[in-house]
Amino acid sequence: MVKPMSDDHPPSLRVAEQDFRWADVTLRQYKDEDAAPFKTVSRQVLFSDPKLAGELRYFEVAPDGYSTLERHDHMHAVMILRGAGKVLVGDKVHDVKTHDLITIPSWTWHQFRPAPGENLGFLCLVNAERDRPQLPSSEELAALRADAKVAAFLDGTG
Amino acid sequence: MVKPMSDDHPPSLRVAEQDFRWADVTLRQYKDEDAAPFKTVSRQVLFSDPKLAGELRYFEVAPDGYSTLERHDHMHAVMILRGAGKVLVGDKVHDVKTHDLITIPSWTWHQFRPAPGENLGFLCLVNAERDRPQLPSSEELAALRADAKVAAFLDGTG
Repeated sequence: MVKPMSDDHPPSLRVAEQDFRWADVTLRQYKDEDAAPFKTVSRQVLFSDPKLAGELRYFEVAPDGYSTLERHDHMHAVMILRGAGKVLVGDKVHDVKTHDLITIPSWTWHQFRPAPGENLGFLCLVNAERDRPQLPSSEELAALRADAKVAAFLDGTG
Repeated sequence: MVKPMSDDHPPSLRVAEQDFRWADVTLRQYKDEDAAPFKTVSRQVLFSDPKLAGELRYFEVAPDGYSTLERHDHMHAVMILRGAGKVLVGDKVHDVKTHDLITIPSWTWHQFRPAPGENLGFLCLVNAERDRPQLPSSEELAALRADAKVAAFLDGTG
């Protein structure tokens, strides 16, 4: 028997709850490890469906946390949904606030950091089919850090 | 000469401005016509890129307005971003508020209406490649209106 298509979908309505949680959406808290290239980041996959070529995820970085510094072939289309902070895109550091749009092209280094005392939450649209992220080599990291503003951002002091 | 890939992208940062407008994003106001099956709806395309399989648009319906009642093969993945209202999905009317998620499966009738005195703004993720919407025939409209709650929604009295 063929499974009805509607079974692949979440309910028509998933309500927004307190603190940027959603009904029927699993929150995945990344584990904090000294060796891990991220800190206090959570992920909720809001839309992922066989009928959709894109996926919409909500990431949240807690105060003093940061997302992984990485790059990849696939593109990110981002809208800040909660709080404010800074975003590194390539060799530029941008101040961002709620509802700002950020475009991260292919093979561009990027990292998200909340403003002091804030949570930084953002929607991220990606292709459902995509490559795995690449981390910077020590040479690539040194090249990024050659810019004083980028170095301060990466140290969390920018 | 091959055009650099980066030329296809918007700036890395497009800031959110007042009243759910964005820098470097064109607002398209749909024309109000008596014959048109929508009323006071605007559209801003936030992300549309050759490297993205999905597109993210922001629609806003002014008080007393409504989106087109339609269906199509492609799916909609929606997040309310501004205000509150009601959404018809198939034969069900849902109350919705900011940050709620709405899934509109293939070939499912749908329409958005703001709550009295409110603007209803929402993000809508679709596949970049998609079919054209279909409008209801008079028979299909009559079938929808057979449900009193749906009829009240369609009359804007629900």
